[in-house]
Amino acid sequence: MTLPPALLDILRHAFAADALSVDEGERLAYAYDNSRRNALPDAVVFPTTHEQVETLVRACREHRVPVVARGRGTNTTGATVPVEGGVVASFERMNRILRIDPDNRLAVVEPGVLNGDLQNALKPHGFFWPPDPTSSPWCSIGGNLACNSAGPRTVKYGSPRENTLGLRAVAGTGEGFRCGTYTSKGSTGYDLTRLLIGSEGTLALITEATLKLAPKPSALRTLRATYRDVGAAARAVARIMAQPVTPCALEFIDDVALKLARDYGGDGVPLAGAMLMIEVDGEPETLPSAVDAVSRAARGDGLEELKVAQTAEETQALWSARKALSPAQRTISPNKINEDVVVPVSHLPELVDGIKQLAAKHDVLIVSFGHAGNGNLHVNLLPRDDAERERAHACLAEVFALVIRLEGTLSGEHGIGLIKREFMPLALEPATLGLMRNVKAAFDPDSILNPGKLLP
Amino acid sequence: MTLPPALLDILRHAFAADALSVDEGERLAYAYDNSRRNALPDAVVFPTTHEQVETLVRACREHRVPVVARGRGTNTTGATVPVEGGVVASFERMNRILRIDPDNRLAVVEPGVLNGDLQNALKPHGFFWPPDPTSSPWCSIGGNLACNSAGPRTVKYGSPRENTLGLRAVAGTGEGFRCGTYTSKGSTGYDLTRLLIGSEGTLALITEATLKLAPKPSALRTLRATYRDVGAAARAVARIMAQPVTPCALEFIDDVALKLARDYGGDGVPLAGAMLMIEVDGEPETLPSAVDAVSRAARGDGLEELKVAQTAEETQALWSARKALSPAQRTISPNKINEDVVVPVSHLPELVDGIKQLAAKHDVLIVSFGHAGNGNLHVNLLPRDDAERERAHACLAEVFALVIRLEGTLSGEHGIGLIKREFMPLALEPATLGLMRNVKAAFDPDSILNPGKLLP
Repeated sequence: MTLPPALLDILRHAFAADALSVDEGERLAYAYDNSRRNALPDAVVFPTTHEQVETLVRACREHRVPVVARGRGTNTTGATVPVEGGVVASFERMNRILRIDPDNRLAVVEPGVLNGDLQNALKPHGFFWPPDPTSSPWCSIGGNLACNSAGPRTVKYGSPRENTLGLRAVAGTGEGFRCGTYTSKGSTGYDLTRLLIGSEGTLALITEATLKLAPKPSALRTLRATYRDVGAAARAVARIMAQPVTPCALEFIDDVALKLARDYGGDGVPLAGAMLMIEVDGEPETLPSAVDAVSRAARGDGLEELKVAQTAEETQALWSARKALSPAQRTISPNKINEDVVVPVSHLPELVDGIKQLAAKHDVLIVSFGHAGNGNLHVNLLPRDDAERERAHACLAEVFALVIRLEGTLSGEHGIGLIKREFMPLALEPATLGLMRNVKAAFDPDSILNPGKLLP
Repeated sequence: MTLPPALLDILRHAFAADALSVDEGERLAYAYDNSRRNALPDAVVFPTTHEQVETLVRACREHRVPVVARGRGTNTTGATVPVEGGVVASFERMNRILRIDPDNRLAVVEPGVLNGDLQNALKPHGFFWPPDPTSSPWCSIGGNLACNSAGPRTVKYGSPRENTLGLRAVAGTGEGFRCGTYTSKGSTGYDLTRLLIGSEGTLALITEATLKLAPKPSALRTLRATYRDVGAAARAVARIMAQPVTPCALEFIDDVALKLARDYGGDGVPLAGAMLMIEVDGEPETLPSAVDAVSRAARGDGLEELKVAQTAEETQALWSARKALSPAQRTISPNKINEDVVVPVSHLPELVDGIKQLAAKHDVLIVSFGHAGNGNLHVNLLPRDDAERERAHACLAEVFALVIRLEGTLSGEHGIGLIKREFMPLALEPATLGLMRNVKAAFDPDSILNPGKLLP
C-alpha cells in the first residue's frame, strides 16, 4: 500500500521535511520492535506538538489509513509493528520534561521522554517515578504508559496505573482531550486515564502525561537467599509478602537460570535450587528492623544461605547472577520466547513445578525468573532450532492454560500486542472481550489506531 | 410510572416475596440518600446472587425501565436517588465475605459487605483495606467502589482505584462479565476495573469485588499542630508532603471550624488560625524517626504549638476537635452543603484564602476542613435560612470556578451524582465529556443504569 497523495499532502504541510519520511531505509528502521516481528510502514512521522498529532489522526481517519504510535520499540510483544502498514508516529522527538513539581509530587512530561532521563532529572528533587522496566535507560514514558510496563519496584510502589494522575491524548476520532487530574485524588467522572494506560495505542495517542512521583528513600539494603528447591523459595515469597514490611524488590531465579548465569557470569553466581534477591528501602534508621523482618520471613524450611550486603560492592556482587541472565540466554537462543505470566503469589510453587513438567514433556529449555513479589514470572523458552521452536509454541499454549487454571493472567507487564492476542480468549470471557471491543469503538470508530493488536 | 406487568412477573419469578417490594412504605425508605434529595422508585429488589442481577437488568432493559444500584445510601451527592423512578437494587443482603487470602494480599467480597465489617474480619490476619470513609461502620464496599470513596488514609495508601484488583459485574446490556485479576499486577487488555470504579452505577452493577489488602502497621503516632493562620498551615502541608515520610493521615481544620468545634466540644479544642492532625504509622522501631521527620517539616513560620500524643487517651484528646466537627455543624444548619473539592497541595493556601473571600462576598458561613495531604478540602456551606441558601448556591459556583483555576477538580472522593453534574463542563472539556458519553453507550446502550447522574 502507498499512501493516498491527498493524505501525503496534508502530512507534508503539517510536518517539516525532516519530520516525515517515506524513504525505505528509514521506514525499515520503524518496521520492527524488540519482538523481532516486522512489517514496513508506508511513512514515518516525528511529531513534536499535540496539534500535529491531531492533524495526523484526523487526516489518516479521513483516508482510513492506520496510525501506529511508537516510543522506543523496546516492547517484546510486537505492539508497535505496523502489521497493516500506514503511518508510524514515532514520539522520540517529543521529549521535553514540561514541569517538575515536588510540592505536588508530580511531573508533566511529553511521551518521548526516556524513563531513565526522567529519573535522573527527578533525583536532585529527592523524588522518583516508580515504574522501572529493565530497559529504563532507553525506553520512553509513552511506551511505559501504553503497555503498563512495570519492573521490580512494582511490588512496593505499583505500576503506571497506580502512578499516573492525568493524560492529554488524541482519540481515534482525531479529537484531542485531557483526562485525569493534577491532584493525587479525584472522583470526577469515568477514569479514562487508567483506561488508556495499557491500551497499547489502540484507543488514543498520548501526547502528555502527568505522573505521580514518590519520595526517594535515602537508603537501600540488598539480601540474597538461596533455597534447596523452587518450592521452598516460592513458599518464602508468600511468607515475605504476608508480613508488614513490603520489600521494594523481590526477585526469583530458578535453578536452570542460575546454572546458565553461572556458566556465563562465573563463580560469584551461586548454584542452588532457587534464589531470591530481596531489597528493602527506607530512611537509614528504619532499615535494620526492615532487614530483620524480611530475613525472619525468608528463613524457613529449605533455606540454604541468607546473605545481607554490607557495602555497595557486595550489593553489586549479589546482583551479578540476575545481571548475567539476559546475555547468558542470548548465547543459547537468539530466538528466545519471552513471556511474563502472573499468578497469585501463593500459586508460584505450582506454576514453577508445572512449567518444569511442561519443559520436560515438550523437550524445550525453559528458564524462569522474575518479579516474585507480584507473582510475575518471566518464562523464557529457549529454542535452538526450528524443530524446538515448533515444540516451544505448543508448550507455550499449555503454559498459558496452566496460568489461567492457577487464577493468573497472560501478562503482568509486557502487554498483549501481536503475539498474545490469540490467547486472549483463554484469559477473558466473551462478554468481557465484547465490552472491550465496544470501548475500542467508543474511542476509535474506524479502527485506524494500531490495528491487529491486543484484541483477538 | 408503574412497572409494566410483564416486567413485574419476571421480577416476581426471580426474587422471593421478601426480596421484592412495591409497597409504598418500603419504597419511601429507598427514595433518598444522605444528599437529602428524594424520588420514589417503582419497586425495590434485594438481590443475593449475580444471576438475579443479570435477570433484573435484562428484564428492565427489555422494558426500558431504570435500574439504580444502592449500597447503604451514605453518599452526599444524590447518586442513589432514583430520579426517573424504576427499580432500586439494594445490595444490602448480598453481603458475604467470600474469601480472605492473606498470602495473596486479597479478599473477595460481595458488594453489600460493610466497610467496617470487612476491616474487622481482616484484623486477625494483620491486614486492612485502605479506603476508610468516615462512614466506614455503615457504608458498603459496593458504594465505596461506585463513588471511589476514600478517606484520610488515602494520602498514604490510595483510593479504591489503587486498591481493587478485579470485579464481577452486570453491564447495562444485562450481560454479566468479569474484569481485572487475582494478581497484584496485570497488563491483559483494557482496564475495565478502574473504569467501573467511580462510575456511580451508570455503567454496570458490581456483584463481586477482589480487593487488594495492605499489611496493617502495628503502631501509630498522632501529632497535632496549630498555626497562626491557614496559609502557614497550608505551607506546612506542602513541606510535609515534599519529604520522604508520608503520613497516613494529614488533616486540615480552619479557624472557623475550630471555633465551631470548641463551642460544641469544649476547652480541649484549641483556638488557632488553623490546625493540622498528622498521623504516621509503621513498625514500632521506625516510629520515632518518622515522628521526627514529620515534626521537622511541620515546624516553620507560623507554627504555634506542636503536640505529640504519648498514650491512647492523649491521641483521643487530640482528635476531639476533628470529631466534634460534624455534630457541631448540624447545630447550625441542617441543610449544610457539603463539597469535597481538591487542588494540588501547593495551591491549598490560595484555595483557603479564596474561599474566605467568597464567604465574605456572599455572606455565607463556610467551614473548611479535610484531607490536606491530598489537597482535598471539605468545603461546608452552612445556610441557616432560605435567603442564605440561595446565596450559598451562587457562592458554590464561584468556589468551583476557583478550584478549576487552581488546577483542581470538583470532587476528591464524594463523586458527582445528581448534585454536581451541572458543573461537569467546568472541569472537563467537551471532547472528554463526549468520550465519557461514548463509554456510557458502550456499557449501557439504552441508558437504563442510574439515569440522570454523573454526566451532564
